[in-house]
Amino acid sequence: MRIYGDLVSGNCLKVKWTCDYLHLPHEWIDIDIMQGESRTPEFLARNPFGQVPVVELADGRQLAQSNAIIMYLAEASGLIPNDPFERAKVMEWLFWEQYSHEPYVAVCRFQMKYQGKSADELDPDKVARGTKALEILESALNGRDFLVGDSVSIADIGLVAYTRVAHEGGFDLAAFPNIGNWIERCEAALGLSE
Amino acid sequence: MRIYGDLVSGNCLKVKWTCDYLHLPHEWIDIDIMQGESRTPEFLARNPFGQVPVVELADGRQLAQSNAIIMYLAEASGLIPNDPFERAKVMEWLFWEQYSHEPYVAVCRFQMKYQGKSADELDPDKVARGTKALEILESALNGRDFLVGDSVSIADIGLVAYTRVAHEGGFDLAAFPNIGNWIERCEAALGLSE
Repeated sequence: MRIYGDLVSGNCLKVKWTCDYLHLPHEWIDIDIMQGESRTPEFLARNPFGQVPVVELADGRQLAQSNAIIMYLAEASGLIPNDPFERAKVMEWLFWEQYSHEPYVAVCRFQMKYQGKSADELDPDKVARGTKALEILESALNGRDFLVGDSVSIADIGLVAYTRVAHEGGFDLAAFPNIGNWIERCEAALGLSE
Repeated sequence: MRIYGDLVSGNCLKVKWTCDYLHLPHEWIDIDIMQGESRTPEFLARNPFGQVPVVELADGRQLAQSNAIIMYLAEASGLIPNDPFERAKVMEWLFWEQYSHEPYVAVCRFQMKYQGKSADELDPDKVARGTKALEILESALNGRDFLVGDSVSIADIGLVAYTRVAHEGGFDLAAFPNIGNWIERCEAALGLSE
């Protein structure tokens, strides 16, 4: 299995962490998104969506979309609950992440960290929606160790990827103590060093 | 099972069509999003995300996020492929829909149809990204009847909901013949009358 990705991208890290946790053998091929390597004709032939990460299976079939990839890779592992309703709650979190969290938290972080914007130059609407997403996450983590069930799942992997670097997008994580504790639990469970 | 939704919303229609196709008994409870009924304290207690649709199971448990709901409802039916990789391709399409299609195609349509904007008043970036999404869909449907496998799946349900009304958001569907034919196939397969 080959994984095309850029470690700058939390979406790619989700896939890397899932592989590492499950000890899935893979070859990591760096795609430098800042240099436009995800928009070349060669890459678009691989993934018409023009996005990383992309997984190429041993038989050549390709799969894109980070959350679809981690669901596929984690199937029948401890990272996805067996109970159908709990599985659905994992999907609920992953769809919410892509619609209501990533477009604000990750985009603000990208603009500040990689495009050199200051916090004042961010779109106030994106900042407000990112803050709202963190508020919802903070509230959901009240009294819980992980987002679904009692142990780390791909819901946590999907959400923690950009949440743990939200401060790089100008968000004050100190205001969200449940999130801070959950990030530490996720990092411990996943063996993340940095 | 109760479904809280607004038939103005394609996200809610996805759930209705899945239930109708699979003959799943349910009670439909109208939530008027234009009147703010998805932001009341009562509704937020039901779904902290403040979004429709929400499904309430017979035992009181709640599930949000349209694409998570249709995956849950369609489990073990003909609307989801059995093959793990094809299942993953269904998820790929559904995540792509929420990230790269709905925020542009559906939002332009909402602003024109329900907020009274003219095509000239739309955000040009949203129009360009919506057009790009339709181009990717058009290309993916080349030589295919449905998005994944040989029959209608929840990938088609997820994508057709807003694509079939894209013209209400100023997008010219006549420029996308594969999409036009696919919409007709989906409508026939799902028994959609309007």
